[in-house]
Amino acid sequence: MATEIEHKFLVVDDGWRAGVERAVAMRQGYLVSDAVRSVRVRVEGDSAALNVKGAVVGIARREYEYAIPLADAAEMLDELCGQKVEKTRHYVRHAGHLWEVDVFEGANAGLVVAEIELAHAGEPFVRPPWVGADVSHDLRYYNSQLAVHPYQDWR
Amino acid sequence: MATEIEHKFLVVDDGWRAGVERAVAMRQGYLVSDAVRSVRVRVEGDSAALNVKGAVVGIARREYEYAIPLADAAEMLDELCGQKVEKTRHYVRHAGHLWEVDVFEGANAGLVVAEIELAHAGEPFVRPPWVGADVSHDLRYYNSQLAVHPYQDWR
Repeated sequence: MATEIEHKFLVVDDGWRAGVERAVAMRQGYLVSDAVRSVRVRVEGDSAALNVKGAVVGIARREYEYAIPLADAAEMLDELCGQKVEKTRHYVRHAGHLWEVDVFEGANAGLVVAEIELAHAGEPFVRPPWVGADVSHDLRYYNSQLAVHPYQDWR
Repeated sequence: MATEIEHKFLVVDDGWRAGVERAVAMRQGYLVSDAVRSVRVRVEGDSAALNVKGAVVGIARREYEYAIPLADAAEMLDELCGQKVEKTRHYVRHAGHLWEVDVFEGANAGLVVAEIELAHAGEPFVRPPWVGADVSHDLRYYNSQLAVHPYQDWR
């Protein structure tokens, strides 16, 4: 078990692109996502994982992740999950922290968010100039929600 | 990926007890169980697993299973799953096949079922004298259903 502490921000300009260390294509779907738990299937480059998360309690969530065979994940995504979320994740170094900048595609094209994972809730971090509003607590930006209510339908 | 081919029967007497090779206590719950998929958390003796199954197509179902840490499974069962199913599984040798005889406990006490897993749909097997009705296609006997509609509530 791990307790995940992360902050999520909207990205307001392309300033982050200069700091990209690497990028990976991601495709994910959900076997379940409700008020109590979510089970996510993700293909990330050449690897895949099953992820179980507990209900949201502020910005800390219980999380379990297990590597699974790529072929299993591809079958589950195609046959057992509902709508998929596709994005390219960019790892960006800023002021000593590694940020994840997700550029969404498909039905969520146009959305770009940046996340930082902290070791503990009080850990200080520098807010980069290319981030805007803190949407950590906004359910609409959860990937599980983006699967069923994609960004392009918001407008 | 594996395709599971199994038959399930009600157990009508204790004749199977003479053939028990070993027995193990099981406790399981579901992160989801609906018309499309189920995700099961199971603690079996000192080990634990996460199991993903696709929708039922006759007696063949797609199935994926991954070993996970016992502590993770215990937390998921306590915090993320709904009602649990508890049983003792007995492995019973009969006419060259290994049968699983599940003796349920708790809210399902009184129910005893026997399952046989086959390598392919047409594989011949000997029906032991201690089994009765074939309930392979009866949804009520699915463990996921026994979690929400336990046997003791049927009467």
